[in-house]
Amino acid sequence: MIAPAPKAALLIIGNEILSGRTQDANLQYIAKELGKKGVRFAEVRVIPDIEETIISVVNELRKNYDYLFTTGGIGPTHDDITTASVAKAFGVPLERHEETYRIMEEYYASRGGMNEGRTKMTLLPRGAEPITNPVSAAPGIHIGNVYVMAGIPNVMRAMFDSFSGSLVGGAVIQAHEVRVYIAESKIAAPLEQLQQRYPDLDIGSYPFVDGVRFGTSLVLRGTDTHRIQAAAGEMEAFLAELGATAV
Amino acid sequence: MIAPAPKAALLIIGNEILSGRTQDANLQYIAKELGKKGVRFAEVRVIPDIEETIISVVNELRKNYDYLFTTGGIGPTHDDITTASVAKAFGVPLERHEETYRIMEEYYASRGGMNEGRTKMTLLPRGAEPITNPVSAAPGIHIGNVYVMAGIPNVMRAMFDSFSGSLVGGAVIQAHEVRVYIAESKIAAPLEQLQQRYPDLDIGSYPFVDGVRFGTSLVLRGTDTHRIQAAAGEMEAFLAELGATAV
Repeated sequence: MIAPAPKAALLIIGNEILSGRTQDANLQYIAKELGKKGVRFAEVRVIPDIEETIISVVNELRKNYDYLFTTGGIGPTHDDITTASVAKAFGVPLERHEETYRIMEEYYASRGGMNEGRTKMTLLPRGAEPITNPVSAAPGIHIGNVYVMAGIPNVMRAMFDSFSGSLVGGAVIQAHEVRVYIAESKIAAPLEQLQQRYPDLDIGSYPFVDGVRFGTSLVLRGTDTHRIQAAAGEMEAFLAELGATAV
Repeated sequence: MIAPAPKAALLIIGNEILSGRTQDANLQYIAKELGKKGVRFAEVRVIPDIEETIISVVNELRKNYDYLFTTGGIGPTHDDITTASVAKAFGVPLERHEETYRIMEEYYASRGGMNEGRTKMTLLPRGAEPITNPVSAAPGIHIGNVYVMAGIPNVMRAMFDSFSGSLVGGAVIQAHEVRVYIAESKIAAPLEQLQQRYPDLDIGSYPFVDGVRFGTSLVLRGTDTHRIQAAAGEMEAFLAELGATAV
């Protein structure tokens, strides 16, 4: 069991992911960034654009985790219902955020001016703070332990990067990976014994096919570099004994 | 509101997704295949390899949906705990599946023979049926309304394809997509009115950036082709009026 630390969940909101139209590109980015900060990424959900579902899942996840991130559904159109649903989850009204309105008005001055859809994006749940959007002005939303972001990957990343410095994590997990040409079923027994000797590490085994050759990627994860190095030494010894060749 | 039909959820089990090491490649495939069958894909969860979590989420999702698919964690190593966890979720023991043992024995005859890890993959929850794995022999598991598959994409697809003919769906959702160079905030109002006139369709608006040009992809989804065509006609009319140019 790896040392505990603050935990986070991600909620991906969007019919376009569940219909298969769009391939999610945000989960992996958030996973890697949280890893660097020592925040344990513990759960992801993908749900459709249905108000009651969003309200109920937001309330469940924000209670169960230290941080909840959401992506999708904060644009100007009728199918963008995340902001209003998050306000309902917190039991607060939406109201115009004046600083946001000024930023949007300036951004859109040379782009046709404000309109109904753009004005919608200046409404924030009462008590929320805007998350800066250096790409296209309309902000994300930070309320309580919830961070509401856009679904478009470059906007999501810019938003995440603008607040991630303030996230509080624990010990950072280090990973040591070894890729070998051997079927994982041949190394299951010594690998399990290694895991038992190193309960403070998380030892993963991931098969891959490299053309027609079967191989296994072995990953040692933990917060103590010395323990990882010690386990890696033992692992290399039994891999060599079994005749596994490095990729 | 689109016509209802049987609903499905996907449970992605694996620390490697949550650590960011691996990009999931199964969600979108399953989404598209379920769409073709008229099964509504309603929820996805990603969780770590923790037994209590797997048991609890499997039991929650199999109760809430007509079908539950899982990916990941059915290999030969100590970190592959999905099969044992699913057995516990159903309250049944694991037992050797003789037909599976014979298939595996034959497959591995020229690959070093059976061993502890390979034998582990011949254990199925009592009452389960194996899901054929034409790629590497070790089967998936079908028990109740749950289909347990491998995480490796080519194996997962082969398993899914081997049983998907038996899934019962409802009316298939058709999609009509139009991509235009116009900011979605400029078309929010007429689009919302269109959605109100066509409550049986699901009208989505997805912004994109094509180099430096902003555009919007508009998607009409529903089960009645005539209604989609009628809405598409009205949409093209207001897009032309607003000066949107097709991509």
